[in-house]
Amino acid sequence: MKIQSVRGTRDFYPDDMALRNWLFARWRAASRRAGFVEVDGPVLEPLDLYTEKSGPEIAEQLYWLEDKGGRRLALRPEFTPTLARMIAARQAALPTPIRWFNISRCFRYERAQKGRLREFYQWNVDLIGLDEFYADAECISVAVDAMQDMGLTPDDVEVRISDRRLLSELMQDLGITAESVPAVFRVLDKRDKVPRETLFEMLLGTDIGTAHIEGVKKILALQSLEDLQTYAQSRAPEIDTRVQFVQGLFTSLHDYGIADWCRFDIGIVRGLAYYTGPVWEVYDRKSEFRAIFGGGRYDRLLADVGGRPMPACGFACGDAVLGLLLKERGLGPAAQKAAQYFVASAEKDNWSEVLLVVRHLRRCNQATQFDLTGGSLKRQMKKAADAGARFVAIVTGEFANSRRVTLRDMDSGEQRDVALEKLGA
Amino acid sequence: MKIQSVRGTRDFYPDDMALRNWLFARWRAASRRAGFVEVDGPVLEPLDLYTEKSGPEIAEQLYWLEDKGGRRLALRPEFTPTLARMIAARQAALPTPIRWFNISRCFRYERAQKGRLREFYQWNVDLIGLDEFYADAECISVAVDAMQDMGLTPDDVEVRISDRRLLSELMQDLGITAESVPAVFRVLDKRDKVPRETLFEMLLGTDIGTAHIEGVKKILALQSLEDLQTYAQSRAPEIDTRVQFVQGLFTSLHDYGIADWCRFDIGIVRGLAYYTGPVWEVYDRKSEFRAIFGGGRYDRLLADVGGRPMPACGFACGDAVLGLLLKERGLGPAAQKAAQYFVASAEKDNWSEVLLVVRHLRRCNQATQFDLTGGSLKRQMKKAADAGARFVAIVTGEFANSRRVTLRDMDSGEQRDVALEKLGA
Repeated sequence: MKIQSVRGTRDFYPDDMALRNWLFARWRAASRRAGFVEVDGPVLEPLDLYTEKSGPEIAEQLYWLEDKGGRRLALRPEFTPTLARMIAARQAALPTPIRWFNISRCFRYERAQKGRLREFYQWNVDLIGLDEFYADAECISVAVDAMQDMGLTPDDVEVRISDRRLLSELMQDLGITAESVPAVFRVLDKRDKVPRETLFEMLLGTDIGTAHIEGVKKILALQSLEDLQTYAQSRAPEIDTRVQFVQGLFTSLHDYGIADWCRFDIGIVRGLAYYTGPVWEVYDRKSEFRAIFGGGRYDRLLADVGGRPMPACGFACGDAVLGLLLKERGLGPAAQKAAQYFVASAEKDNWSEVLLVVRHLRRCNQATQFDLTGGSLKRQMKKAADAGARFVAIVTGEFANSRRVTLRDMDSGEQRDVALEKLGA
Repeated sequence: MKIQSVRGTRDFYPDDMALRNWLFARWRAASRRAGFVEVDGPVLEPLDLYTEKSGPEIAEQLYWLEDKGGRRLALRPEFTPTLARMIAARQAALPTPIRWFNISRCFRYERAQKGRLREFYQWNVDLIGLDEFYADAECISVAVDAMQDMGLTPDDVEVRISDRRLLSELMQDLGITAESVPAVFRVLDKRDKVPRETLFEMLLGTDIGTAHIEGVKKILALQSLEDLQTYAQSRAPEIDTRVQFVQGLFTSLHDYGIADWCRFDIGIVRGLAYYTGPVWEVYDRKSEFRAIFGGGRYDRLLADVGGRPMPACGFACGDAVLGLLLKERGLGPAAQKAAQYFVASAEKDNWSEVLLVVRHLRRCNQATQFDLTGGSLKRQMKKAADAGARFVAIVTGEFANSRRVTLRDMDSGEQRDVALEKLGA
């Protein structure tokens, strides 16, 4: 009876796993270069951890179950609530700022489609305890560092940055009430998914009134920081403050040497209600795929789980969309090789001599295979090629006296005699 | 509102995570040295994948849920069924032998206790396609290699090895029917959990009859391969064949140089019904903990999921019991350091100069932090110490002209001037 895997999940055969390990290694290296340390939490979390933050509707998009004690347990859809729970539990003892990163397997019960899986990995980087723009810039620099390390360039991707507080002030300056702003944000978040006209029709569906539609259009038409400055002149002082904040952020990004990766894009709002300041997303320049990274500031994070309030910013990056982009650009690890060395035997029944060579090579930390079935030399060479071995060490009848093997370089075809103690060093 | 984590799950704070990464690195390195390649599958698998193999009772010990389409999905309790499913799906295309390893997060809905968690990690190594004892020896050698790399010695742990087919032949030689053998094995698997007398009472509860109890006692009293040879003399030829098999296995282990880690222990049977040949477990010598590794041969693996039959052997090792043993022995990673370098500033408002140094160090792949809040030098030195930084690079007013920083070695307290381009190399 053949059993199929679950829709929206993946099997990681050796080549898939090699890509996953390559990606994780780059996520980890970029995080560590910037002095972030790795943490993790459980996959199983109380369902309440998510419904408290996002409302009971969220349960529809989660995998969850009731245990024998009637407790509702969810498979984490993201890491951030776990992060908040973990920090709240040890808040007094942790030196600030907290620089944590995490790579977690997450689960969402959504329609499986291109770049959207039900089981996926997410890289999270969080910087907790700082409320100024340099913290946001530090997080963006880590994201760019990882992309650069993967071989991506500013020609491939773009970090689109805005600020929700700025946008909120601009909306209120039009006369839109603070209460209506979230509904407007929810519409704006659909910007790339619907035609521009549909977007404005959706805005009419909110309670901001037709009077403000033209004003919103004008704000969304601002193309650059310069446009923003011109527009913002002689308006409310709250707007000035936020414009200066955004300018400071862009100056920082310039100091990080990553200005050419970044663009001010006033229409980025990010749907999630918890963002409280700068928000940003990374897209491929051709806009073929969904957002690759989503990040921003979420200063209410700790208070929402009952902790002492602490400013916070960070980002998440999934492996599915990024994987599609890397594949399209031909980036990723070299072909997977199971072994660097293969020990072959030219004799029969010299098992213990072959093992002596194998043990020596493995002690030298060389990935080493041999033919456990003791087939012909030709067959052993075939197996060495299957394993992708760069070198074959052939143990002949001479070995017992000479302690030397014939080493064949599979790339050049050259052979030479090598003493056992020199092998694999 | 404070939300607690789920019982039997773990939060991995930086030090816990450092231990997990240290352990995984050793699991991966030992696997790769022996030419095994990494694979993985989903956490969510069809519940059938487990009930087909182990019967519907197994669902009681699993976390599972019904999705909106009425499909029953389980959180994997182990990796082996996924492995079998993955191999069966590509069986014709995969060159043999298949050498795969995996590190997976697994879930079991059991009573949480010392060394037994509801959410844990398991390292799996599988060698598929070989039916001779050298394959079993190769797997055991990988397990020992990893333990050695962790700093464990034969004084700490012991690999206890038996053979289920041998034991089955010995039982049948007593007159116990082949049908009764599994019931006897299930009792013997309790050997370390109940007193010896209780064990024999439990044996009386099977249908083997009191006549054979003395015979079983005699077999269980065999302490060594020599005892076994003496006992097995002039019995059935099937027994001879299996004794030779076990002798071959121990000769191999000797050739691998790991004989002093291994002991023949006829009472090891392993509860799971699917083992078909050699079985082995690793225990700490003091028997303080449960088994650390469990392994053996399971030649029916592929046929059970509808694949073409293929011989197979391998092992699994969880992180919970091993973690307890390492802790008790004082083994594990050195204290976690967030940063190797800390860039401090002796001036105000030289953000872009500080960032120039930070960027240089990070490009040299050095974990580098700096004080984003621009506090006093004293405060910055405190933050450098918090991060565990080995070096502090101090940017002074001279930097703009000299492009040199003052480098302080935090271990020795020595300071010297270093040119930017020499820093971190």
